Amino acid sequence: MDAKLAELKRRLAEVDDLRSAAAVLDWDQMVLMPPAGAAVRAERLATLQRVAHERFVDGRIGELLEELRPLEQSLPHDADDACLVRVTRTDWEKARRVPADLAAEMAKASSEGMEAWAAARAAGDYAAFRPWLDRHLALKHAYVECFEPAADPYDILLDDFEPGTTTAEVRAVFDRLKEELVPLIAALRDSAVDPLPPGPYPVEAQRALGLEAMTALGFEPSSFRLDSSVHPFCTSFAISDIRVTARYDEGDLESLFTCLHEIGHGLYERGISPELERTPLASGCSSGLHESQSRLWENVVGRSLPFWRWFHPRLQAAFPGVLGDMPLEACYRAVNRVSPSFIRVDADEVTYGMHIILRFELEQELLAGTLSSADLPEAWNARFEEYLGLAVPEDRLGVLQDVHWSGGAFGYFPTYQLGNVMSVQIWEAARAALPGLEEQFEQGDFSALGAWLRENLYALGRKLTPKETLERVVGGPLDPEPYLRYLREKYGAGASR
Amino acid sequence: MDAKLAELKRRLAEVDDLRSAAAVLDWDQMVLMPPAGAAVRAERLATLQRVAHERFVDGRIGELLEELRPLEQSLPHDADDACLVRVTRTDWEKARRVPADLAAEMAKASSEGMEAWAAARAAGDYAAFRPWLDRHLALKHAYVECFEPAADPYDILLDDFEPGTTTAEVRAVFDRLKEELVPLIAALRDSAVDPLPPGPYPVEAQRALGLEAMTALGFEPSSFRLDSSVHPFCTSFAISDIRVTARYDEGDLESLFTCLHEIGHGLYERGISPELERTPLASGCSSGLHESQSRLWENVVGRSLPFWRWFHPRLQAAFPGVLGDMPLEACYRAVNRVSPSFIRVDADEVTYGMHIILRFELEQELLAGTLSSADLPEAWNARFEEYLGLAVPEDRLGVLQDVHWSGGAFGYFPTYQLGNVMSVQIWEAARAALPGLEEQFEQGDFSALGAWLRENLYALGRKLTPKETLERVVGGPLDPEPYLRYLREKYGAGASR
Repeated sequence: MDAKLAELKRRLAEVDDLRSAAAVLDWDQMVLMPPAGAAVRAERLATLQRVAHERFVDGRIGELLEELRPLEQSLPHDADDACLVRVTRTDWEKARRVPADLAAEMAKASSEGMEAWAAARAAGDYAAFRPWLDRHLALKHAYVECFEPAADPYDILLDDFEPGTTTAEVRAVFDRLKEELVPLIAALRDSAVDPLPPGPYPVEAQRALGLEAMTALGFEPSSFRLDSSVHPFCTSFAISDIRVTARYDEGDLESLFTCLHEIGHGLYERGISPELERTPLASGCSSGLHESQSRLWENVVGRSLPFWRWFHPRLQAAFPGVLGDMPLEACYRAVNRVSPSFIRVDADEVTYGMHIILRFELEQELLAGTLSSADLPEAWNARFEEYLGLAVPEDRLGVLQDVHWSGGAFGYFPTYQLGNVMSVQIWEAARAALPGLEEQFEQGDFSALGAWLRENLYALGRKLTPKETLERVVGGPLDPEPYLRYLREKYGAGASR
Repeated sequence: MDAKLAELKRRLAEVDDLRSAAAVLDWDQMVLMPPAGAAVRAERLATLQRVAHERFVDGRIGELLEELRPLEQSLPHDADDACLVRVTRTDWEKARRVPADLAAEMAKASSEGMEAWAAARAAGDYAAFRPWLDRHLALKHAYVECFEPAADPYDILLDDFEPGTTTAEVRAVFDRLKEELVPLIAALRDSAVDPLPPGPYPVEAQRALGLEAMTALGFEPSSFRLDSSVHPFCTSFAISDIRVTARYDEGDLESLFTCLHEIGHGLYERGISPELERTPLASGCSSGLHESQSRLWENVVGRSLPFWRWFHPRLQAAFPGVLGDMPLEACYRAVNRVSPSFIRVDADEVTYGMHIILRFELEQELLAGTLSSADLPEAWNARFEEYLGLAVPEDRLGVLQDVHWSGGAFGYFPTYQLGNVMSVQIWEAARAALPGLEEQFEQGDFSALGAWLRENLYALGRKLTPKETLERVVGGPLDPEPYLRYLREKYGAGASR
């Protein structure tokens, strides 16, 4: 049995090495690569992904997984080796169901669709993008066909990002959010909070300050790097080699929140148990749980008053000319300003959820065929006005704004908002377990929270399902109430704003 | 036949993709990686190399190479497809001869040996390094045994770096060099030339100036990157994605010559015919020919008076405080100062060759068993004094200085000096074909030389053997006389120094 487990681990480590190599090439392309390298880089990446896939779906891995059932069943449910066999079996069975030709066509449609979208967005030309949307929808139908029928075909797509969570479960949570968010947004619409001044905030000072904040949260130079890229992201090449990127604009301080967001993702990857290295378990548990950590550090911590008590003098010292006279209270209010706007990635904590709910609903209707891609802009604009009170003036500020659909990523958007919901559930659990957290934040000490998250969440990696993981951390299932309570307390009528 | 050729190309492209991915991971490790990533990175690299090797030595590739013989023979000798089949067959037959276990043991000994060497060099403790040298020698004997007997076992090692060139041929060239270099070094020993002042040369200004010089030579930001690393190097991820690195020290201007050296390697890789992309032909022809290009741009061009007529005002503008008053003539003499010293990588154009000849001779004696590793430091020091007139005071400045032996790279050193020899042969051919080159250099115009080298040498990649390639470029075989003539004219008794 030991020899079989060793063989399984050896084969999975190889696959992990190949996938991680692809992550390095991907990161290099987005951060550093000279532009003329793009065409060949796409070939290199396709090869790595194909070879990794071939090695993963190898029949021998399936045999080993069968032969290791007795071992799996003899171990506790959360023993590393039991989890490895169980989770790998799920992954393997899923990967085997998708024919190589369909996977290749989806990958091709994804990269071509993204190119077409970039041009269509630049031109504000939805009609030019629409055929790609139809192609992706056709491919999604073919993809859904590869699996046992689900209660809702959208379940199959969602499962790739939030395994085990159903469309009905998400809908129930989102409907509850909608009940409270729509009136809260309408009530906040006219509250006049000044934003931060428009700079200039020199890029070098932004970089240094972002690094200072991230370092307080747990960024160590021995195992992290911060670089720049057009689209900020975080990726992991090993549990001890985490790459975060940010984007800088002299006219605002968004880079600071980007840093807090991406280090949240990074701390999760860095906190995975080293025993899981080079296995399929060595990554965050789901897109939603991952986002819960970027949002926890960015918003729940990084936009809190205790954080700002510590951070405000540092911010002033970094930009004395622009912010030297701006009091703590005004800064805190400015970074928590609620103001409906068109672009999701610029949205505040309160309006953000409605951007997501809108997309979640449209995705389901497109997939079900109750909404045609021809009618999508109209549907988008109508619902946007209903949810956020703004009339969309052009598709670039509406249906064309996000890259996700162009790459065929349907089912991904809802995990952003699930992340927000879970971030507050997890925060409440941490606060209950760790008295005095906010006093520590005021001193710039985030270590107790970091250690608790590492021990209770990050270390687990993908050992358990997302539902099991959340249950273990917060003692219950997905629940929108803590998040709504948090928003009401921070932004509601009685809030100290 | 077309289908077979297409299958061969598809399989070779995959291997090339995997090897290139390894190059990206390697580069990232040397340039950027946080230190804690090292252990896992070694595993990732080992997997990529193993998978690439397995795919390359696959029996199906051998079958295709056999089946494609008629095609190969129907095409001109230098047709891309004929070269692909011919060169791949040679590579494949060579790769198949080395058992996977031996290759793995050599790779392991290489990385472990380099670690042991780094510690031994830091401590100046040759005895601690000696067992690794013995281990490498034993592995080299096993490696040599994998091949048909050669006239000299060293031929087998040399063939990995300078295919087709024999030990006897190198020895004949080196013996001829020795005849002239040893007396020339002795004669120059007492010539008093002042070096450049010891700075300070701010790193940012060095970087900008290095980039300016490289740009004049052909560095384009669309397909090149310049980064920093402890050991400068050049690598290629695609014909249009070339990475060069340099190292900066405020106390000297070595970084400028490093830039000229590495861009020479880079221009070679960048100039390979795009038709050869993702084939085994898409790299420089041999270590010696590669070095001929780094040396041509660094020394023959970059230390020439015409280059300095263009470069001197730029250098003065970059460092006005330190060099503002230093005349052209004095700068030119300073960067061509001959002074025997202990460290090879710091050696000038005249003494450099003797550093190499020394190592070439000792390597052969170690391999033949006529010199024991126990007696190596003594042999090194005696010969160093004979060739360079200096008594080696400690092993750190002697036998422990280079990394090559610690990684098991025997047979590599001679290609450095072959590169110097070929660089002048190629320079003479270019100058004969292109009148007015030096006048162009004085104007900062290096494009005619670059274009000639691209057309006559770089574009060929590995299509022909190194000997065929050199013959095609210079119209004759390896010949030390142009190099000796160049040194005599530049440094001899009658030279205008």
